[in-house]
Amino acid sequence: MHLEEKTIKSDVIYEGPIFTITHDTAELENGRTAVRDVLLHHGGVCVIPVNDNGEIYLVKQFRYPFRRVTVEVPAGKLEKGESHAECGKRELLEETGFTCREYTYLGEMLPTPAYNSEITHIYLARGLEFSKQSPDEDEFLDVVTMPLAKAVEMVMNGEITDGKTQVAVLKAARILGV
Amino acid sequence: MHLEEKTIKSDVIYEGPIFTITHDTAELENGRTAVRDVLLHHGGVCVIPVNDNGEIYLVKQFRYPFRRVTVEVPAGKLEKGESHAECGKRELLEETGFTCREYTYLGEMLPTPAYNSEITHIYLARGLEFSKQSPDEDEFLDVVTMPLAKAVEMVMNGEITDGKTQVAVLKAARILGV
Repeated sequence: MHLEEKTIKSDVIYEGPIFTITHDTAELENGRTAVRDVLLHHGGVCVIPVNDNGEIYLVKQFRYPFRRVTVEVPAGKLEKGESHAECGKRELLEETGFTCREYTYLGEMLPTPAYNSEITHIYLARGLEFSKQSPDEDEFLDVVTMPLAKAVEMVMNGEITDGKTQVAVLKAARILGV
Repeated sequence: MHLEEKTIKSDVIYEGPIFTITHDTAELENGRTAVRDVLLHHGGVCVIPVNDNGEIYLVKQFRYPFRRVTVEVPAGKLEKGESHAECGKRELLEETGFTCREYTYLGEMLPTPAYNSEITHIYLARGLEFSKQSPDEDEFLDVVTMPLAKAVEMVMNGEITDGKTQVAVLKAARILGV
């Protein structure tokens, strides 16, 4: 089939707590072969929580690969057997302390489809009610709040750099007319 | 410092053509340690080319980790010593055959900052002139064109799933009032 690549050989190079690395050989449509290194990941979920005043809740945390603190929508990895809908509600509650009455699926995002199997599912949460924040024992984060319009500005001017947060903010803004 | 994680130990697990994998131990702010596996990547660039009729050019290609064909903005990896501005123009020309008179930086996107050091730089290209398409020898892709408004619809309804394309389309649409 036009464009298709067929797997000829696949070896697992590394299995870690967050991802697995495979080293494959694939046959291209011209009959030649190419190396395809892939990071296998179970997928993640993020949630953009918007309150009745049009403000959103974001999370500041240290991102080790960049040695910097980023501002991101609440998010987390899918646990085994967990649906992405459940996972998003769990992460929202753990990281911000909020439950929600309205929960809308905004679709999937493939962060780096060239070499990474992760799919990030995005949700919009409204009708927020504060319950109790309970991050994982070794998870350190600060919750910040700002108008959705301010977050749009920060995405557009480059202050918010996280990809899933950029997509969640810009999608929510279009839906809510911000 | 609050939130900061300090590297205690770092080992290279794998070095491949596209990325390197490191396995680190980091000290958290509570004094405990945690494993931090990181994918090191030199970074990439994508370009959203918009013609004088408000149409954009996208690229269909096979994405091996998903065994599916995706629709994405023209993009590629940074080569050694290459600036991201040059890289974007090179990839635009190679993949679509276009050069551009106007070239605007739309900022950076971190696709998966939790475990991946890749930064994707995003450009908007206007004033397009067709020259000659010249993909790499083993690179197979089809160029498709559509109104920017149609691409926005496909991002919002989930038909366009690639993260950098979602950000590029939604940013360009805000800037151009689409």
